[in-house]
Amino acid sequence: MIRVGTGVDAHAYAPDAPLRLAGLDWPGEPGLSGHSDGDVACHAVVDALLSAAGLGDIGGLVGVDLPGTENADSTGFVRLALDRLGAEGWRPVNISVQIVGNRPKFAPRRAEAEARMSALVGAPVSLGATTSDGLGFTGRGEGIAAIATALIERD
Amino acid sequence: MIRVGTGVDAHAYAPDAPLRLAGLDWPGEPGLSGHSDGDVACHAVVDALLSAAGLGDIGGLVGVDLPGTENADSTGFVRLALDRLGAEGWRPVNISVQIVGNRPKFAPRRAEAEARMSALVGAPVSLGATTSDGLGFTGRGEGIAAIATALIERD
Amino acid sequence: MIRVGTGVDAHAYAPDAPLRLAGLDWPGEPGLSGHSDGDVACHAVVDALLSAAGLGDIGGLVGVDLPGTENADSTGFVRLALDRLGAEGWRPVNISVQIVGNRPKFAPRRAEAEARMSALVGAPVSLGATTSDGLGFTGRGEGIAAIATALIERD
Ligand SMILES: [Zn+2]
Ligand SMILES: [Zn+2]
Ligand SMILES: [Zn+2]
Repeated sequence: MIRVGTGVDAHAYAPDAPLRLAGLDWPGEPGLSGHSDGDVACHAVVDALLSAAGLGDIGGLVGVDLPGTENADSTGFVRLALDRLGAEGWRPVNISVQIVGNRPKFAPRRAEAEARMSALVGAPVSLGATTSDGLGFTGRGEGIAAIATALIERD
Repeated sequence: MIRVGTGVDAHAYAPDAPLRLAGLDWPGEPGLSGHSDGDVACHAVVDALLSAAGLGDIGGLVGVDLPGTENADSTGFVRLALDRLGAEGWRPVNISVQIVGNRPKFAPRRAEAEARMSALVGAPVSLGATTSDGLGFTGRGEGIAAIATALIERD
Repeated sequence: MIRVGTGVDAHAYAPDAPLRLAGLDWPGEPGLSGHSDGDVACHAVVDALLSAAGLGDIGGLVGVDLPGTENADSTGFVRLALDRLGAEGWRPVNISVQIVGNRPKFAPRRAEAEARMSALVGAPVSLGATTSDGLGFTGRGEGIAAIATALIERD
């Protein structure tokens, strides 16, 4: 029994905040605004996993406006989503994430981010990054977008 | 035999029109422009289903510029796409839809929309919603975007 | 053993360049800027395939800033990605691509583009096209975006 799920997310740069992206700290890079640490990759992964299993979305999983989620480490949200899936017998097969933005330069740490996210998820997580050739809000350097697609299975 | 398909769609708000989204009426909310009722979720679902089966796209399914499709209920397009898939022996496994926009506030009616769409499709349809943190056309409140990923199978 | 992968890409119009899109030449249509021939459909396909297999992204596959990739035919990048997948025992099941832009009018050559891409990939490649209803950079006619989702398998 197999299911597919897709999640997308976007956050504006918040230059004074530290950047958390794909579960890693990026010292010296402009951070992201929004609930928690603004890790668009983790948020897209959470939504893809929950959607595949029919378990709602990130807004229902974590009260994003509640006290206590400010600056929260979003890898905790991924863990929480995996717990919900596990309780229903679902396990991830693989997750593919594409990050769109001008910064940070992702390639030098792609392998590290993949290792981090794959260990977190317990299944292969692929991370790609691209710019949008100067187009749209990502091209204007206003923020970062991410799209994730997850395959999950249960017996 | 399994196949995956992805569809995306976007429509501008047309404040004087009634809103149809994910197969539901949303009284008091600004509607969407475009062919038919502008239901971006249904349109993305149609494109995901047709694409998975290699049966073209929504533009080929329904003559969107033809008389008779103005204000048409887009759930009819979903039914039509399912008929085309069924004729080739395909059935949906599940569909995951992510809606991006500032309005309507989707969470309070997420379960209702999922029930409506799942009944329509005859397989689980998951619906998530997010904003784009003030970024891009969805963030500026100009319209709504949707992305759908479908898994289909046949013997 | 099955895996899913997603890739997105966008390029700005470069009116003086010839257009290559989905592996076809489009005489008389404004071309796309960016590395190589700017074929957003092929680039999204490459990223989807590589991501599904956990083999990085297009930036790692082809040195996009290297001499020799200017105006390169992007179908060569698709072949290269397939070689990498094949070396690991992966083969494509199917790929679904959605193109978003005002031009070219895609429908009249959709079947031809699908035949071209499917022959190239050795598996069904579906191509859909839509506008974004005047919204965002695609709606303003600044460029073309594409999103691809690939399913791959190995024994
Ligand atoms: Zn987020
Ligand atoms: Zn539409
Ligand atoms: Zn490209």
